Amino acid sequence: MTNFSDTICAPATSVGTGAVSIIRISGPGTLEVLDKLVVFRSGTAAGSRGYRVKYGSVPGLDEVLVMLFRAPHSYTGEDAAEISFHASPYIAAQLLERLAGAGCRLAEPGEFTRRAFLNGKMDLAQAEAVADVIAASSEAQHRVAMNQLRGGYSAKLRSIRSQLLELASLLELELDFSEEDVEFADRSRLRGLLDSATARCRRLADSFRLGNAIRNGFPVAIVGAPNSGKSTLLNALLRDDRAIVSDIPGTTRDTVEETCVIGGVLFRFIDTAGIREASDEVERLGIERSFRAMGQAQIVFGVVDLSASPAILEAETRRILGRMDAGSQKLVLLANKCDKSGFNKNVNVINEIVSSSDYKDIDAIVLEISAKKGFGLEKLRSVLPELADPGASGGDTLVTNARHAAALRDAAAALAAVSDGMDQGLPSDLLAEDLRTAITHLGTITGQISTDEVLGEIFSKFCIGK
Amino acid sequence: MTNFSDTICAPATSVGTGAVSIIRISGPGTLEVLDKLVVFRSGTAAGSRGYRVKYGSVPGLDEVLVMLFRAPHSYTGEDAAEISFHASPYIAAQLLERLAGAGCRLAEPGEFTRRAFLNGKMDLAQAEAVADVIAASSEAQHRVAMNQLRGGYSAKLRSIRSQLLELASLLELELDFSEEDVEFADRSRLRGLLDSATARCRRLADSFRLGNAIRNGFPVAIVGAPNSGKSTLLNALLRDDRAIVSDIPGTTRDTVEETCVIGGVLFRFIDTAGIREASDEVERLGIERSFRAMGQAQIVFGVVDLSASPAILEAETRRILGRMDAGSQKLVLLANKCDKSGFNKNVNVINEIVSSSDYKDIDAIVLEISAKKGFGLEKLRSVLPELADPGASGGDTLVTNARHAAALRDAAAALAAVSDGMDQGLPSDLLAEDLRTAITHLGTITGQISTDEVLGEIFSKFCIGK
Repeated sequence: MTNFSDTICAPATSVGTGAVSIIRISGPGTLEVLDKLVVFRSGTAAGSRGYRVKYGSVPGLDEVLVMLFRAPHSYTGEDAAEISFHASPYIAAQLLERLAGAGCRLAEPGEFTRRAFLNGKMDLAQAEAVADVIAASSEAQHRVAMNQLRGGYSAKLRSIRSQLLELASLLELELDFSEEDVEFADRSRLRGLLDSATARCRRLADSFRLGNAIRNGFPVAIVGAPNSGKSTLLNALLRDDRAIVSDIPGTTRDTVEETCVIGGVLFRFIDTAGIREASDEVERLGIERSFRAMGQAQIVFGVVDLSASPAILEAETRRILGRMDAGSQKLVLLANKCDKSGFNKNVNVINEIVSSSDYKDIDAIVLEISAKKGFGLEKLRSVLPELADPGASGGDTLVTNARHAAALRDAAAALAAVSDGMDQGLPSDLLAEDLRTAITHLGTITGQISTDEVLGEIFSKFCIGK
Repeated sequence: MTNFSDTICAPATSVGTGAVSIIRISGPGTLEVLDKLVVFRSGTAAGSRGYRVKYGSVPGLDEVLVMLFRAPHSYTGEDAAEISFHASPYIAAQLLERLAGAGCRLAEPGEFTRRAFLNGKMDLAQAEAVADVIAASSEAQHRVAMNQLRGGYSAKLRSIRSQLLELASLLELELDFSEEDVEFADRSRLRGLLDSATARCRRLADSFRLGNAIRNGFPVAIVGAPNSGKSTLLNALLRDDRAIVSDIPGTTRDTVEETCVIGGVLFRFIDTAGIREASDEVERLGIERSFRAMGQAQIVFGVVDLSASPAILEAETRRILGRMDAGSQKLVLLANKCDKSGFNKNVNVINEIVSSSDYKDIDAIVLEISAKKGFGLEKLRSVLPELADPGASGGDTLVTNARHAAALRDAAAALAAVSDGMDQGLPSDLLAEDLRTAITHLGTITGQISTDEVLGEIFSKFCIGK
């Protein structure tokens, strides 16, 4: 338990409309500060037990409810309180000023959670999950973040770490007797532990692709010829979900990104510039950019205009299919403008190409839609969550944090070095060094190993009051 | 105490960023609903005392803190609770859904406060003050609203009402003996009570002008010739207060209104179209509109261009002075563009006109400023709160609510009718009828007299969760 000498405060609810707002206080001076600030109807904060609500008045300002927590039974592990008051920005500002006068310092972003970590109330991976839980807008995001917050992920890491510590102790046993040049440890047992730990690190590191998609949205690229209806489709998909749509500024003006929850899954739609045979170098570069965006997507919406001639339709369909990564991407070929009469059998052209042996490795489905009239979109919405399929891996622990994924990859690399060393018959002390490196990398995730710099980096991304 | 059979719930904090959010529950089923929804670490909600915080988990969703209140010791007077959870819109939506599943109904706007009123926890004037306290952005707004919330205003009304009830009992004494044609009541005592009550009603009704200005901002009209620098001045005044500036759409495109807190007082600045000798009918109408806006202001900023010729300067100064309402308005003549060299002595032209006997009734000061360079604005900001001077009446109770002001004017009118009746020697039963009308009007303010329609009107303006 770290003893902080100062007492911090910050608003814990967003300022704006609403009935009540909350200011949070934590630190050794909490009770004293409260008794200076609030005239309680009965008794004092200092004389009160934890998990009590006290009613009182801040003279000339407001009537307040104070939730009291006594160390170590609080979020931070310190004496702490939450003051609930009428949600006026004026009262909030005045309360913070009076708290400052009573000796409270305004908390830095994430400082409450940082104290919770430093006081051993949660490990670093759990602390990082707090921000993810708050930011979650889909069921899958929420499930993954809550699993991490509740320690499911940390437990998995602890289990890998204990395998590695067992491995290390076996190797160190050899070191103790190294002058006798005896290989004490059962090498096959060592190898078994090593391979299992390496595989578990790799599996977790690999889960980042799915975890990241769940956290930031499954990337869906919308590609197709100019005027095939890409933007109309995007707008139609977003229309019913305006409340939970947000704009992500694209990296270039040619790419528009929008996120939206469909069937409990967060999707990140990337609208791209139209692709066709380029007529000049400038256009060729723009089209390449669209293909690059397509390459980063896990799902591709290939939009083709059903009212084009069969020859054009074939060329456009093949252009999209030719750029698919069969191993990692799924394609939804959207035969758009199906409301225009007389082109219904054109969809056969598309179906024939898709099912031809040229593209047998590509996971593709064909749907007839009219983005403009809204036809077929219900079907598209219903298949989309299945394509993302986060549920299949939802029971497993997923890595959603780039910092963790990097640490896991580093740990796996160090373990691979141990494995190579064993193959080459390196002495135990060299093997032990690589092993310690792997253990250190894992330790940075949950914070057994941490530096002020790393902590600063992590908690500065939190909001004030958390 | 009204017994509501249903249990209501609603978010009490604004949705958005922040560390925690709160959902509020009230009604007879509160404890049962909580025990269905939350797995508490120890005990149950039903088995817990009020003013306790209970920690628990909503399975598969979040860890929560629940503040418990037992009837009648809660905001509404019913069993009630506040559930504090991680501030994610996803969790909020899920919790509300589960609460609905457990038998809670989503509260209507203001329904918690409406229940508090109907359960006798506060009167109607206090209930209305809750919304004002939350909306207050200046110290003066806050002070007036808090006085009303704490019952200071209600106490004053109660006192007037008890005077009138005493009056009524004296009159009714006469009625009982009316057949004997004896005037029992001491007529001079009756008259004294009546005059005092009438004066108090009128004083309160008259305080609405100040109260309304404090609540919605002191109206300051900015008038002057085209290009005298009105908009530059407005922007310069608002610049440092952007955080608490909001746009009020003007009723016409010619009037821009902006509010801003200066020296603890909320001001509402009205920028008007330039005034000069109109060259045609269309322009004349526009200028009349500016003068009308000026007429509604309590403070007028008359902006004149110091770099104009003395003749023009005089004409413009007189044009503004000629439109002032000496009884109710204060004028600040702003000699703008004082940074331009060579025109310093022009300010004497203005001073001479202002101090001439033509305008001796007008409360005016002259300040040299440069709106563009920011010169003199500090001085302007420092005198402005004095001109509004809400502090002088701040200790008194102010009426800030148009509904209350109308009721007070109606009560005063009914009392005037009683007074006229006494002068004309009307019989006591007729006097008593007007008196009852006055008592009824006063009763509508605090809600002794109320209808569902009036309550619906009042509480529908509240936010959800209050």
